[in-house]
Amino acid sequence: MTVDHPPTPGSALWVLAHPRQDSLNGHLFRAGVEALSRDYDVATSDLYAMGFDPVLGEDDLGEPAGRPGNLAVLAGEAYAQGRLQPEVEAEHAKLAAAELLVLQFPLWWYGPPAILKGWLDRVLTDGFAYDDELDPELGTPRRYGDGGLTRRRALVVVTAGEDERTLGPRGVSGDLDSLLFPLTHGALWYVGIDVVDLHVVHDADGLSSAGVEREIRRLRDRLAGLDSEPVRSFRRLRDGDYPTDLRALHPELLPGRTDLGIHRRSASLDAG
Amino acid sequence: MTVDHPPTPGSALWVLAHPRQDSLNGHLFRAGVEALSRDYDVATSDLYAMGFDPVLGEDDLGEPAGRPGNLAVLAGEAYAQGRLQPEVEAEHAKLAAAELLVLQFPLWWYGPPAILKGWLDRVLTDGFAYDDELDPELGTPRRYGDGGLTRRRALVVVTAGEDERTLGPRGVSGDLDSLLFPLTHGALWYVGIDVVDLHVVHDADGLSSAGVEREIRRLRDRLAGLDSEPVRSFRRLRDGDYPTDLRALHPELLPGRTDLGIHRRSASLDAG
Repeated sequence: MTVDHPPTPGSALWVLAHPRQDSLNGHLFRAGVEALSRDYDVATSDLYAMGFDPVLGEDDLGEPAGRPGNLAVLAGEAYAQGRLQPEVEAEHAKLAAAELLVLQFPLWWYGPPAILKGWLDRVLTDGFAYDDELDPELGTPRRYGDGGLTRRRALVVVTAGEDERTLGPRGVSGDLDSLLFPLTHGALWYVGIDVVDLHVVHDADGLSSAGVEREIRRLRDRLAGLDSEPVRSFRRLRDGDYPTDLRALHPELLPGRTDLGIHRRSASLDAG
Repeated sequence: MTVDHPPTPGSALWVLAHPRQDSLNGHLFRAGVEALSRDYDVATSDLYAMGFDPVLGEDDLGEPAGRPGNLAVLAGEAYAQGRLQPEVEAEHAKLAAAELLVLQFPLWWYGPPAILKGWLDRVLTDGFAYDDELDPELGTPRRYGDGGLTRRRALVVVTAGEDERTLGPRGVSGDLDSLLFPLTHGALWYVGIDVVDLHVVHDADGLSSAGVEREIRRLRDRLAGLDSEPVRSFRRLRDGDYPTDLRALHPELLPGRTDLGIHRRSASLDAG
């Protein structure tokens, strides 16, 4: 099966996970979508407003219900048979079109709210977003840089109550790039999407209205220059940095290091 | 407000996040609960079976609905006023009693399924599980080792389709300890719960029935020795490793390192 969804030039998808319209996130969402709409045809998934159900269950696993198997494989079969739920198919259509994806959320327990985690669980379906079978042309499975959603970039917009130091490289809470690695590398890069640097609003609780305006301006400025930003450059499976017999980074690359930063190609340059 | 819930000796809580009874996770759950019941009074939260709603929303934020404020603070006020939802109060009661907590789940997109992420979002309530205000006795807020749920330990049981190398220290997918740091450190340790080493079932897809039996035995053995296992020893906020003006690890501790392992006290010993 070919997993490949060429994006529609000029299409974007903005996914928001916040329960309140009248919140910093709500303000940033509306301002961001408006700003982006100058250059893109912007679809939105306001997950709370949609009442999106984040719980992957039997409805996602095709028919007959309850048949045994690995859940991801069953969901992939349901996808191939056109038996996914309409709300999942709708997200697939938006994702397939978008060449720019924005994921916006408040940091809850150092990760995305459940409603966004479940959007990943249900929407990044096997056969649509990636393929675990060996691709004969690539010589690897279609994942980590070669999933079904290549030729796209994503911006992660995250609001955090904590400050820049607390979420910095040696901060009390762990550095935010590492905390969100399961999202940026484990989900987005896995399915082929390039990620630019995080857009973080620190100290996000109780911003004054001037503070909200400042953050709206900062987000607009970021969006305006997004197309020319460098991407994060995670390592591509097919480039051979992870020898097949090791399934780990080649011992000669960044020897001795075990931090999550080793999975960025730029890390080699930094160290060299 | 005092945040402190002395556990009931001999009480445990086992939380499961898997949609199917007849799955590896289902088998491990039943065998684990049975084994643990020899030594503990075991409460369970089988989140799928309970139909647990993982989406934190207005129902969690007290009255009047829609009043402005930081969501965590609003939920904390709802807790203080006894206005939380019955299903959240029920989880509080189980957590407050348990001196041993088991969280069991399949690894989906390198983290817990949405239903478990949302259990954290809704159940680890401000004022119940932690307190952001300065505690005059401690000299720090009640978090990172001093939350409302101290004197407990947790075991994280996780099944993964990938193998030990792929999820190892330099593995393609990132090492599992770092991937689950938001859970072990960011949630469990934040609220005061000590964590023992992860219990991981690698290559979990399509185990033979002999494989399932082997994993059941391995889990039983692990549980039998759990009380004498060393805990992970994350750094305690009040020990002063993170100077208040820096909010980051003291420059003299593990200088130059920025991996998530620096937040373990044992990391200093390793390096020394």
